[in-house]
Amino acid sequence: LPAVGGSEGVGRVVELGPDTQGPAVGQTVLLPPGGGTWATHVVAAAARLVPLPNAADPKQLAMLTVNPPTASLLLSDFASLQPGDWVIQNGANSGVGSYVVQLAKLRGFKTVNIVRRESAVAGVEGLGADVVLVDGDDLAERVKAATGGAAIKLGIDAVGGKATMRLAACLGEGASMVNYGALSGEPCVVSPRELVFRDVCLKGFWLARWFRTTAQQKQLALLTELAGLIAAGKLSAPIQATYDVAQIKEAVAAAAAGERQGKILITPSHA
Amino acid sequence: LPAVGGSEGVGRVVELGPDTQGPAVGQTVLLPPGGGTWATHVVAAAARLVPLPNAADPKQLAMLTVNPPTASLLLSDFASLQPGDWVIQNGANSGVGSYVVQLAKLRGFKTVNIVRRESAVAGVEGLGADVVLVDGDDLAERVKAATGGAAIKLGIDAVGGKATMRLAACLGEGASMVNYGALSGEPCVVSPRELVFRDVCLKGFWLARWFRTTAQQKQLALLTELAGLIAAGKLSAPIQATYDVAQIKEAVAAAAAGERQGKILITPSHA
Repeated sequence: LPAVGGSEGVGRVVELGPDTQGPAVGQTVLLPPGGGTWATHVVAAAARLVPLPNAADPKQLAMLTVNPPTASLLLSDFASLQPGDWVIQNGANSGVGSYVVQLAKLRGFKTVNIVRRESAVAGVEGLGADVVLVDGDDLAERVKAATGGAAIKLGIDAVGGKATMRLAACLGEGASMVNYGALSGEPCVVSPRELVFRDVCLKGFWLARWFRTTAQQKQLALLTELAGLIAAGKLSAPIQATYDVAQIKEAVAAAAAGERQGKILITPSHA
Repeated sequence: LPAVGGSEGVGRVVELGPDTQGPAVGQTVLLPPGGGTWATHVVAAAARLVPLPNAADPKQLAMLTVNPPTASLLLSDFASLQPGDWVIQNGANSGVGSYVVQLAKLRGFKTVNIVRRESAVAGVEGLGADVVLVDGDDLAERVKAATGGAAIKLGIDAVGGKATMRLAACLGEGASMVNYGALSGEPCVVSPRELVFRDVCLKGFWLARWFRTTAQQKQLALLTELAGLIAAGKLSAPIQATYDVAQIKEAVAAAAAGERQGKILITPSHA
């Protein structure tokens, strides 16, 4: 300390250093992670700035670094899905969950989306979800009824606790399940009935490890693909409110409150 | 009903049907599963009889079909282990657990073995275990101390409940865990800490599926390899007592009792 907060964001190049090769002045770029993004001006190495579509909504681009790649990789790296295949997720109204619905639809997958409160159903349906259900004890039967008994190939768990077990019970034999969060605050619970007799496996996903272990070129390819979808208006997240850095206390309080309808963003005061 | 009980066992060929090609009279053979093995005489298709070493102890061979292949496949199909690598299992004094210790030693792997009572430690140590510990809350630290902090590549869980979570915490980053039973009667509990941040995955194993989905030739190769190890005295399970089929009530009571020191076998009355 002192340190600048913020782990993701975008900027526009206002000046290049002397003899610097880099994105042209005026170019929208992704800010390098780790340097702090809640700032009006950032000094960064030109080579670390990823160019982004100038025409896209900077607020939507600002959310590019964490949730969209998480959603994309959850859908691609844990099961071999073909168009028409079913995916099920819980925490479907979360940031990642919203991108999962949209990316699945773009790739031709069908989604069953589980939320924890009735008031979250309509928002997820509005993103293009095929099925949205409120979690509960008879979940597997309700999912079966809603999908016509389809063998669901991938389960995405953001909740943990017995919600993991309920999700596993909805999957087809040999399906994969991946956990990336514990909204319940509890460890995942999975029955040997699913693991042993129905060959379901449980893995975990952590974006930080993916960035650490994946070639730079592959990372750029994914971010560029996702930025293109955002620029084309095909991928977005609802924004509840934007705050200036000076209003950081109010912003954090709004982000921490339950029943949000979208993300809380910090914008530089001159924006 | 009526049905003949017993799902595994061996016999000796006493007679071949007319024009039957099959194992010679006097040959020890594995009895076909599903036909009932608690019998003095069994009629079976010659092609379904797997020849076994005549010189081996028939009581040890009689235990060939379920626990030894389970132990072998748990060690081979869920992690790529090299000699010198560490494996950890709980329920280590169970039938499967005993074979895991012996097979791991034969393959050059080191084992950490977790049991649920102090009185089971000596028996597992006697099988050639490298480390034997009683389960408890500080398990990961005690394992670390006993192995010098080795990165354990495979965890084998027979217990479920929070024992699964304690086992997962002992594993190295990126390790695999496989569950094949729930001695605790509880579903597996795994922390996202292990799944997400330490890239541990949890799978299940069911021998019945392996037999159903694996080529006959590969099944025979495994059973023949294991029968050879049994015949050579390199693989065995402790036997607590043998009973005649007529004593089946006493046998079942003995098998159901806790604190057993070995298997309960049924032998034909003329044996």
